[in-house]
Amino acid sequence: MLMHLSTWPEVEQFIARSRTIVVPIGSNEQHGPTGLLGTDWLCPEIIALEAERTADILVAPTFNIGMAQHHLAFAGTISLRPSTFIAAIGDWIRSLTGHGFEKILFLNGHGGNIASIEAAFSEVYADASFAKRRAGYALKLCNWWDLPGVGELAREQFPSGHGAHATPSEIAITQWALPHARKSAHYAPQIAPSGPIREALEFRARYPDGRVGSDPGQATPEKGEALVKLAAQSLAQELDAFSLEPVPA
Amino acid sequence: MLMHLSTWPEVEQFIARSRTIVVPIGSNEQHGPTGLLGTDWLCPEIIALEAERTADILVAPTFNIGMAQHHLAFAGTISLRPSTFIAAIGDWIRSLTGHGFEKILFLNGHGGNIASIEAAFSEVYADASFAKRRAGYALKLCNWWDLPGVGELAREQFPSGHGAHATPSEIAITQWALPHARKSAHYAPQIAPSGPIREALEFRARYPDGRVGSDPGQATPEKGEALVKLAAQSLAQELDAFSLEPVPA
Amino acid sequence: MLMHLSTWPEVEQFIARSRTIVVPIGSNEQHGPTGLLGTDWLCPEIIALEAERTADILVAPTFNIGMAQHHLAFAGTISLRPSTFIAAIGDWIRSLTGHGFEKILFLNGHGGNIASIEAAFSEVYADASFAKRRAGYALKLCNWWDLPGVGELAREQFPSGHGAHATPSEIAITQWALPHARKSAHYAPQIAPSGPIREALEFRARYPDGRVGSDPGQATPEKGEALVKLAAQSLAQELDAFSLEPVPA
Amino acid sequence: MLMHLSTWPEVEQFIARSRTIVVPIGSNEQHGPTGLLGTDWLCPEIIALEAERTADILVAPTFNIGMAQHHLAFAGTISLRPSTFIAAIGDWIRSLTGHGFEKILFLNGHGGNIASIEAAFSEVYADASFAKRRAGYALKLCNWWDLPGVGELAREQFPSGHGAHATPSEIAITQWALPHARKSAHYAPQIAPSGPIREALEFRARYPDGRVGSDPGQATPEKGEALVKLAAQSLAQELDAFSLEPVPA
Amino acid sequence: MLMHLSTWPEVEQFIARSRTIVVPIGSNEQHGPTGLLGTDWLCPEIIALEAERTADILVAPTFNIGMAQHHLAFAGTISLRPSTFIAAIGDWIRSLTGHGFEKILFLNGHGGNIASIEAAFSEVYADASFAKRRAGYALKLCNWWDLPGVGELAREQFPSGHGAHATPSEIAITQWALPHARKSAHYAPQIAPSGPIREALEFRARYPDGRVGSDPGQATPEKGEALVKLAAQSLAQELDAFSLEPVPA
Amino acid sequence: MLMHLSTWPEVEQFIARSRTIVVPIGSNEQHGPTGLLGTDWLCPEIIALEAERTADILVAPTFNIGMAQHHLAFAGTISLRPSTFIAAIGDWIRSLTGHGFEKILFLNGHGGNIASIEAAFSEVYADASFAKRRAGYALKLCNWWDLPGVGELAREQFPSGHGAHATPSEIAITQWALPHARKSAHYAPQIAPSGPIREALEFRARYPDGRVGSDPGQATPEKGEALVKLAAQSLAQELDAFSLEPVPA
Repeated sequence: MLMHLSTWPEVEQFIARSRTIVVPIGSNEQHGPTGLLGTDWLCPEIIALEAERTADILVAPTFNIGMAQHHLAFAGTISLRPSTFIAAIGDWIRSLTGHGFEKILFLNGHGGNIASIEAAFSEVYADASFAKRRAGYALKLCNWWDLPGVGELAREQFPSGHGAHATPSEIAITQWALPHARKSAHYAPQIAPSGPIREALEFRARYPDGRVGSDPGQATPEKGEALVKLAAQSLAQELDAFSLEPVPA
Repeated sequence: MLMHLSTWPEVEQFIARSRTIVVPIGSNEQHGPTGLLGTDWLCPEIIALEAERTADILVAPTFNIGMAQHHLAFAGTISLRPSTFIAAIGDWIRSLTGHGFEKILFLNGHGGNIASIEAAFSEVYADASFAKRRAGYALKLCNWWDLPGVGELAREQFPSGHGAHATPSEIAITQWALPHARKSAHYAPQIAPSGPIREALEFRARYPDGRVGSDPGQATPEKGEALVKLAAQSLAQELDAFSLEPVPA
Repeated sequence: MLMHLSTWPEVEQFIARSRTIVVPIGSNEQHGPTGLLGTDWLCPEIIALEAERTADILVAPTFNIGMAQHHLAFAGTISLRPSTFIAAIGDWIRSLTGHGFEKILFLNGHGGNIASIEAAFSEVYADASFAKRRAGYALKLCNWWDLPGVGELAREQFPSGHGAHATPSEIAITQWALPHARKSAHYAPQIAPSGPIREALEFRARYPDGRVGSDPGQATPEKGEALVKLAAQSLAQELDAFSLEPVPA
Repeated sequence: MLMHLSTWPEVEQFIARSRTIVVPIGSNEQHGPTGLLGTDWLCPEIIALEAERTADILVAPTFNIGMAQHHLAFAGTISLRPSTFIAAIGDWIRSLTGHGFEKILFLNGHGGNIASIEAAFSEVYADASFAKRRAGYALKLCNWWDLPGVGELAREQFPSGHGAHATPSEIAITQWALPHARKSAHYAPQIAPSGPIREALEFRARYPDGRVGSDPGQATPEKGEALVKLAAQSLAQELDAFSLEPVPA
Repeated sequence: MLMHLSTWPEVEQFIARSRTIVVPIGSNEQHGPTGLLGTDWLCPEIIALEAERTADILVAPTFNIGMAQHHLAFAGTISLRPSTFIAAIGDWIRSLTGHGFEKILFLNGHGGNIASIEAAFSEVYADASFAKRRAGYALKLCNWWDLPGVGELAREQFPSGHGAHATPSEIAITQWALPHARKSAHYAPQIAPSGPIREALEFRARYPDGRVGSDPGQATPEKGEALVKLAAQSLAQELDAFSLEPVPA
Repeated sequence: MLMHLSTWPEVEQFIARSRTIVVPIGSNEQHGPTGLLGTDWLCPEIIALEAERTADILVAPTFNIGMAQHHLAFAGTISLRPSTFIAAIGDWIRSLTGHGFEKILFLNGHGGNIASIEAAFSEVYADASFAKRRAGYALKLCNWWDLPGVGELAREQFPSGHGAHATPSEIAITQWALPHARKSAHYAPQIAPSGPIREALEFRARYPDGRVGSDPGQATPEKGEALVKLAAQSLAQELDAFSLEPVPA
């Protein structure tokens, strides 16, 4: 069930049978010469939508702008500051738990989001912790590439040149889901350099075309399909397990 | 051109020929017994995408969560506080103007967003104003129903029972664009009550099924199509005019 | 009854008979070559004080600094950022509702304040809405020129050249109430230009003497008196109606 | 010269001859059974206006709401949180220094404001200090009772029962300036108790009628007049000295 | 009892017999040519530890970074903005009162901290005051040099050249406690100049070697020892008195 | 060189030869029945001080309070909210880089700090990234247990029962450095349970004595000594390498 295509009575009915929801979350940021700017929010959205085709899960709208300050030297990147991102995630969580959701899984598509999302969880939990009361809900961060089996498949598909940004696995997923938006380019070097990630201008100096350690030329829609199918299946299982997880009284 | 389906070099090329961008912005909130929760962000997205089919415009990802505190008593509503919303809009604007965009038009789909969006504009402009320097860019808020001709068409289509929330015009738009997500219900009363809008529980007490002054039963996909086509055409013209607007030196 | 000239026991007694209060709110900002910097907070204060002469209403101290970032290029303008303004309005509201006031009417004298005041209302309401509890109070924004009959009178007095800033109506009001502070100047052009309002330096480039669309030369103390008398009467009626407005339980 | 009764060209002319401005700042809070709620912002306003009658000084609008959380258990008190107060003072300072003012003297009427005003000064200075650049302006806090000679006169007028809140000196000043608003009551005990000041309910428990250590019954308009005349004279001298104070280059 | 060297069950046991805790708080900032950067947090820590040797008191970890924006032009100074400092003090207080502490004494070592600490107290108290509920705890700021008898001793030890920053008394304390870190220098002039304290670059222009009004050359470890012994004794008595202070119900 | 025991001229001299500084950072929080509340800030401080004995490095004061909301149900825990922690880390960084430091290594002792520290880095970098200018400095987070070789040694020393909180390795370090503060207790069960970490009351329900997955009974001062010696050596090498790391121009 897709929340944005449902009515409030339909969501109310869903809550009557399940207190769990998945929020695709990512970033709109440069992904090298051929990766879509939307890659990091499209991937979790694609996986969640695929999972929803066969499982009775509720998918929230996609949180499409994340923490991407280090990509701001490339056109099209939109970033929230960590403090803004944390505040916004907090408002999402307070909105959803106010409706009775007790398990919120953020399916993340951007490594640069991880720290801020975890900080946001602690910021929200702190309301309960300082007040010495139970929060009454549990939050979980799950990167799609960490879903059971997915990392293994990606390593098998791309034994070298997977890299850390504009990876062939994420580009393969968008190639499969959005075939009309497939781009191509000559990569020089074939595998991009690696190194630390700091602020935007230093990033662009280190990584002139935006890629970090990756060779996106290895991506194919077929590999993308395999990743999505497996990830969707794993996601449904994760949501099931999360739903069943007991919360100490 | 859709930003999220483009690469950074493509956006860089666009900026070389135009400094204008449109950001669809809305809200994910209850829309009565038959309106989709995503209605307010889907409508501007639908209109912007329709405009993009024939005009050389750049459409940013949709800002899909807005200021909807008054709808929080209905399941599925997700709201930012005004302060969070203002901070987030500010980060979007700073990201985009950093890339060289000089005209940003927010195509809005939610009346409850208007005050916070305008406050956000002033918050961002204030950086320049306090520092006694030129901002170098212009921001514009445009509600889709205020696009030239659109309000007139809606009044013609729905001479009574248009109302203020869960209106037949916005529901018609989603019916046309997302026919598989069309819902139906018996409305009692046919036209919902009207009155002031304050906080969430009072809102629900006044407007038990979520509608305000509207009879969404009048919506049809055909009326939606007419609204979208006209709005898309007007949007393209607005963007043209905005692009040409001189900024005093 | 003027709050600042009353003691706390007197206010306590007032609350025993009425839960309604009016807060004059405005801005200290340039008003062209002849308008007083205090015009926008003086006008609602003058109207509220006039109303208080005959009606049993409680007038709070005047909130005299508002959101005027666009006027900062003219000497004497003092502005809060929207975020500061919203925080301050929130503290006023929490102070007053803490004493038992249930209806707070902000009588506003500055168009540039509107968005931030409404955003502030939502920010305060959101505390209740996120927590799924009733706020227990109602907030109302009322621009003095929107009081019943006042706009009509102003249009009648100034059929042309009323404009949007440094209007003859607001200047007439201060001429009547503060005759010793009446200023005169040659206006060139007689009616100032109109256009969009953005940041401070652009504003000054567009509107060199600070006026927007107005010819303040039409102002007279007599017209000001008529406006104040009518506005005061309308305000008292608005406060009565607001007091009686039922709040859903 | 009163800023709110001046035009922007008049202020511009003032700045051409002086870069110094005085801002009366106080609080709207309970002042015992007979003190006006506005006492703390009226006193510095009265003194500044008296000084302005004979000296060429510029008086800003009065900052009338301060930090009075400890008085919130008494009706009519309006308080900003320290964080809000600091932000607002910062915006005032940035507005004024943007116009070219280099010396801003805050003439304070409320002891509870002192810490927040000083913290606000440091918050604003910190912008320059972190950036290793000169601020280019100087800020000064001056409590009216600390103006040269004023404390001595008050101690002479009220050798006992002056106290710390709702003092006979401040009440005498409002009696002189606002004779129609003079109140009377039986004080029991004649001199109120003294002690620490913390949060609002504890404050009311310790100080049931709102006074702290004072016997306002000793106030007379004549004593108020003497205080105002002396304070006004001292203020003009302080402003002169502050204007002349060299700022290291 | 030192909190950081205790276990949580030990602290729990302490709370069972006392609800009072002392928090040493200071600053890490330049202290002239011979003063240690840590002087202002070391002094209260040294005094608290000395007091703890003979009294059953609980000493929290030292809050070692305070508000020192005016010292930022000298290497090694680390400063929080007032707003950050206030937020952090608030989190400390909420953490400690959440464990049941009812009396928190901040033993301060830096004059520049005073305003922000007091503002922080009001910020925390305001939560209770706006909500019209009792805080249930009391906060006290105590500068070590204001402990009973200590100021007198310092004036006796250093009748001239004590000054306001990098004072011989604070340097004497660190000389006694940390003899291996004793520094020496030629002071020119012997007694540093005095004057106002504003932002960092102006500070350095006025006070080229960092001292304000002081002659630290008079410091000796013996004088430091006498100050510490007396201050420790006074602190223990202050904590006793604070513990016994009744809080109105 | 320890910053807090140095003078500003000494730090200035250090900066002339090195632009690198290490900041020990941790948390004051429960560490089970025998772990010291200060464990997480003492460990990095102990390691940094050990490294400083033989290497020419500069050690900043210890940032001793971190993000420990999940431990707040145990007495003695003091926590900052993530938002406060991020703001404070930002002020430390801005202070230090203002003095010319170009490489700041945070030596961290608390897993719960990681997300907030990384978010803080991005928050600070974002100032440069949004403004499209180079930051001019590099920030590095290094957990002491991730220093080269240290994790391996700990796994060798504690092949089972190392766990995630109140680990034998961290307790061994404090046993060695602070032998007088060594505590003992009977652990039941010997190895504490493991699981997710969320808010404070849930944490205490899952982990009744505060340990997570650990058997601190295996700690000995000798093991602690070995860990410290190795970690100190690795830290000095990390600082060397970080100092030499080229920053793209």
